[in-house]
Amino acid sequence: MADGQDGLGRWPISCELPVQWGEMDALKHVNHTVFARWMETTRMYYFIACGFVDLFEKEGVGPILAGLKVDYLAPVRFPDKVTVHTTITKIGSSSFEMDYRITSAAMGGETVATATVSGVVFDYNANRSTPMPDSLRAKILKLEASGSG
Amino acid sequence: MADGQDGLGRWPISCELPVQWGEMDALKHVNHTVFARWMETTRMYYFIACGFVDLFEKEGVGPILAGLKVDYLAPVRFPDKVTVHTTITKIGSSSFEMDYRITSAAMGGETVATATVSGVVFDYNANRSTPMPDSLRAKILKLEASGSG
Amino acid sequence: MADGQDGLGRWPISCELPVQWGEMDALKHVNHTVFARWMETTRMYYFIACGFVDLFEKEGVGPILAGLKVDYLAPVRFPDKVTVHTTITKIGSSSFEMDYRITSAAMGGETVATATVSGVVFDYNANRSTPMPDSLRAKILKLEASGSG
Amino acid sequence: MADGQDGLGRWPISCELPVQWGEMDALKHVNHTVFARWMETTRMYYFIACGFVDLFEKEGVGPILAGLKVDYLAPVRFPDKVTVHTTITKIGSSSFEMDYRITSAAMGGETVATATVSGVVFDYNANRSTPMPDSLRAKILKLEASGSG
Repeated sequence: MADGQDGLGRWPISCELPVQWGEMDALKHVNHTVFARWMETTRMYYFIACGFVDLFEKEGVGPILAGLKVDYLAPVRFPDKVTVHTTITKIGSSSFEMDYRITSAAMGGETVATATVSGVVFDYNANRSTPMPDSLRAKILKLEASGSG
Repeated sequence: MADGQDGLGRWPISCELPVQWGEMDALKHVNHTVFARWMETTRMYYFIACGFVDLFEKEGVGPILAGLKVDYLAPVRFPDKVTVHTTITKIGSSSFEMDYRITSAAMGGETVATATVSGVVFDYNANRSTPMPDSLRAKILKLEASGSG
Repeated sequence: MADGQDGLGRWPISCELPVQWGEMDALKHVNHTVFARWMETTRMYYFIACGFVDLFEKEGVGPILAGLKVDYLAPVRFPDKVTVHTTITKIGSSSFEMDYRITSAAMGGETVATATVSGVVFDYNANRSTPMPDSLRAKILKLEASGSG
Repeated sequence: MADGQDGLGRWPISCELPVQWGEMDALKHVNHTVFARWMETTRMYYFIACGFVDLFEKEGVGPILAGLKVDYLAPVRFPDKVTVHTTITKIGSSSFEMDYRITSAAMGGETVATATVSGVVFDYNANRSTPMPDSLRAKILKLEASGSG
């Protein structure tokens, strides 16, 4: 699915999350907004792993979400445990794209949703987008190289 | 923005929602998942208005969410009041598409996000998609005709 | 219900909040955690009105939640509009207590929950509780005097 | 802490839950409503383990939440993993009480919140409270006996 630039799209990060009962809505399956929350948590693990959180804390340069596209493939119910996989597939001058795949343990690892997120490298002090630092790009490529996708 | 089929895309339904303090996340603006929740509430008002909720309660035929695409244009903070506008832009044999536009009162009516949702007409008893009933299609067209978009 | 110290417990602040569809859980009524979110939003309006938010932004002295006690009296469903009423009932040296009452428009103004919150005046810079400034106490008393409870 | 009736209060059920990034609010710690969501998930595991969920699905007799009391002892931040412990401490004719203790892995197992929940045995078909069936009481006692508290 992730068809990234050279060296990208290799799914280096995943995160296991138990479904919470209260995440289900009146249709008795997990509300569609929760998938975005799960992906966000996994994204933060990716940003910790590649040094983006460090960069934000030290220099005020961090990611900002520009777009989200989710395809819902199967409903999820409590109790279950989902695994969210993510990878960066493209790096632009001051932007990037990530793919997501969510699988369900109760459904034997079936994919319940896929998604794409577009983000921008943002200078929170200057309040504008900024080029991705070469050092961050290098760490992302190194992290992706550890993936098996 | 909404460039619908004939008679569609006319934005007949909108919903005012106050921002809740706890909807902000650690970056001090409303978390991106909340936009999807606001749109869902507005979608339900649309489905009530066009008789889709009635159809679901009487015959078990209701909408199911297949896809969501959001473009985030500006951050939202507490306190504020957003208005979510929605319209159906396309009707397929057993599917439909809706557009959304979210505006902020604190930002003078500026658009803070736009989105597209794709849905399927689903027979919850038979557990499969089903053609959109002509009567529902007629009610949607009548509702859209009341819009000014 | 609010049986406060002299000059307190007069319910000066209330907030109307529309129920969102996704706030319902698998039992088809609003999830119990949402009542706490509604109260929090109303609490922030109280804190804005009495100058506690200003104090936090200028001097780093703000409220911190210590305890929450909710009695759930009736289930709430979408669509509905709730009104949350709040009042400070007690002021201690570095603490305070608030009462809450939530009513439902769809149930003709019936009370669906009552609650008590205990809070502490906290110096976020020094990372410890601190006496409530006299100026804040005076503003709270003035705000309460505007209530009708 | 749990000082239950004979044979109760023995903390037989616990649940590990990773903190999600989006559970933090603008004060950069986990929002207070999330603690209630975590306890609810753990409560459902308890109700599955003692047969209360089965009873609800077969006979429409299930638990309903009447009251919640939480003491917040320490803030929680992402990333962290909490463990929620729960036990039934009292069984009345048609009611029950549960205690909760939430601990943080990042804080070396420190207790970050304690809570008490009161519930009612509810006949969802008859729409009224109902005596706790002897068979359920027996299963609760058996489950509690497996605890170490």
